[in-house]
Amino acid sequence: MSLVYRESDPVRLSDDRRSIIAIDQRKLPGEVIYINISTADQMFDAIYTLAVRGAPCIGVFAGYCAPVLAASYKTTDTGEFLTKLRDDLNHIDSSRPTAVNLSWAVKRQLALAEGCAERGSSTGEITEALYEEAVRIHEEDIDMCLKISEAGLSLLKDGDGILTHCNAGALATSRYGTGLGPILLGRERGYDFHVYSDETRPLLQGARLTAYELVNAGVDETVICDDMAAQVMKEGRIQAVLTGCDRIAANGDVANKIGTMQVAILARYYGIPFYVLGPYSTIDYATPNGDQIKIEQRPGEEIRDMWYSKSMAPMGASFYNPAFDVTDNSLITAIITDKGILRPPYTESIKGIQAGE
Amino acid sequence: MSLVYRESDPVRLSDDRRSIIAIDQRKLPGEVIYINISTADQMFDAIYTLAVRGAPCIGVFAGYCAPVLAASYKTTDTGEFLTKLRDDLNHIDSSRPTAVNLSWAVKRQLALAEGCAERGSSTGEITEALYEEAVRIHEEDIDMCLKISEAGLSLLKDGDGILTHCNAGALATSRYGTGLGPILLGRERGYDFHVYSDETRPLLQGARLTAYELVNAGVDETVICDDMAAQVMKEGRIQAVLTGCDRIAANGDVANKIGTMQVAILARYYGIPFYVLGPYSTIDYATPNGDQIKIEQRPGEEIRDMWYSKSMAPMGASFYNPAFDVTDNSLITAIITDKGILRPPYTESIKGIQAGE
Repeated sequence: MSLVYRESDPVRLSDDRRSIIAIDQRKLPGEVIYINISTADQMFDAIYTLAVRGAPCIGVFAGYCAPVLAASYKTTDTGEFLTKLRDDLNHIDSSRPTAVNLSWAVKRQLALAEGCAERGSSTGEITEALYEEAVRIHEEDIDMCLKISEAGLSLLKDGDGILTHCNAGALATSRYGTGLGPILLGRERGYDFHVYSDETRPLLQGARLTAYELVNAGVDETVICDDMAAQVMKEGRIQAVLTGCDRIAANGDVANKIGTMQVAILARYYGIPFYVLGPYSTIDYATPNGDQIKIEQRPGEEIRDMWYSKSMAPMGASFYNPAFDVTDNSLITAIITDKGILRPPYTESIKGIQAGE
Repeated sequence: MSLVYRESDPVRLSDDRRSIIAIDQRKLPGEVIYINISTADQMFDAIYTLAVRGAPCIGVFAGYCAPVLAASYKTTDTGEFLTKLRDDLNHIDSSRPTAVNLSWAVKRQLALAEGCAERGSSTGEITEALYEEAVRIHEEDIDMCLKISEAGLSLLKDGDGILTHCNAGALATSRYGTGLGPILLGRERGYDFHVYSDETRPLLQGARLTAYELVNAGVDETVICDDMAAQVMKEGRIQAVLTGCDRIAANGDVANKIGTMQVAILARYYGIPFYVLGPYSTIDYATPNGDQIKIEQRPGEEIRDMWYSKSMAPMGASFYNPAFDVTDNSLITAIITDKGILRPPYTESIKGIQAGE
């Protein structure tokens, strides 16, 4: 294994390979706390409660779930072993419906385990294979982030003002990140960007995580509330919008954190390019367009109570809390993947990189 | 005096007329606390810290400031009396720059006091006249709200889904409110509206105040985060957007709570009418267009800390916190005032109601 973990990796395997060590992203930016995750229920909760978050990071995490769970099974019966693994991974897969990386990693590991079993591997051998595959997923993710960051940086100019929504930085992925990748890579190369991050209610990933990463990287950053995005655009402060993505449909419609779509509408109104950055694995060829993407609905308490010392809305109030939205492909200037920069018409350009596999 | 105060009035005069009793709107919805305000510094602070807020309500409040201050002056020298009143009211006028009602009420009371003095009134007589004028301003505000509510209701249909931003309800004005007026009046008349209120960061007036008023009035309401506005529009839940306003330029550009402008852009994108409701006194004929309206900038701590038990962004982060924005007249379907419903082209329709005075 060539992968050397870093303290800043949001997800890594413990030395004994019996648990996953993850930065608890709910505690950031106040505290940097590492949690040990070893059971299927803990894995489900880690994703559901957003301790582990960011579509690519969830994919890496799910990859590691497989060998950690496999190593915990007492049985040496391959059939029983596979049934347990299938049940556990499918349970984990149900923790969040929108991001494609989660089920992508689960399917990849299940297919690997089934293939090994068909070829007569022992449960120990399957566990070892799952471990190697998990590391491969992680390495691929790091490589993917660097490729996306390079491609994204080619679209920016030194001195640009950049608006981001939510967090698609190193915490959400591996090392550079996707949406923040060009900014962090550009910073290393001496680019002077002025980054505005939407705080991204209800869970404030922009204020908590993006600002945390940008401050740490020494990038000039400014946090704004989500209802200030049009204002900074109108004032001429923004030359490009960069966001990550949770799922890309075959026609280029993009599901991402709630609020992304409206930033795209505002960018269109002000004639500002709107770039979506994400790995090839985020493209879901089985989903023809955004209408087919299920939007996760989350509890109203996240809006009313979370982060607050007391409720900021009356107890009798009702809430609507979609976690994602779908940005119509007509609003997207380019989709930047590790396999290149896609431009409209997306149905063709997205097909193009599939054909080129 | 025909005006009978109600417990729910956000601002009223004490029985001895030596102080203003105001609902501390910073404490809502958790606590309903009345504060007594009697000095010029307390008056300045009440507005600056948003204990008293909402452009029309600030106007009513400023109206009452004059007789309360006047009654506190020891002098019987009219010149000295007027100098003190001018200094105090101008100080109060400087507490917030954007809303026109504040300086409108200050100018009205100062002109009245100066007129009385020219006609040889005593300081006691001037104080009495200021009191009567303050009550008149309050009564006019109640009458104005009812007229706006009637006009706004004429544009809505039973069953409509309505999106609001910030709070322009009874708390921001008198009785029905402006932006919420048609909803509260409609409710009394048996209309069944479905109201979505943007929580309106950073100070959460939508979640705290609008939801509080709507829940109390028995209106079907749902709080959303500001980054969910496009989503509820896209889902077909919104048939009209209603907002209040802080200042209307002569060409119909409208300054209102930060975030209003982007809701207007989103409404335009989805073909939803965007209605601005406000009193005639909100029209600033001396301001030709929105570019001339000064946007209040507020401290970044409001974004980082306020309402939170701990900071939700890192201490080193920077913030940008404009309190208002200006919605271009091209995005506004109609401006609903107590003098009628204005339609584009606004430069003409706004001139029209001035000529008709």
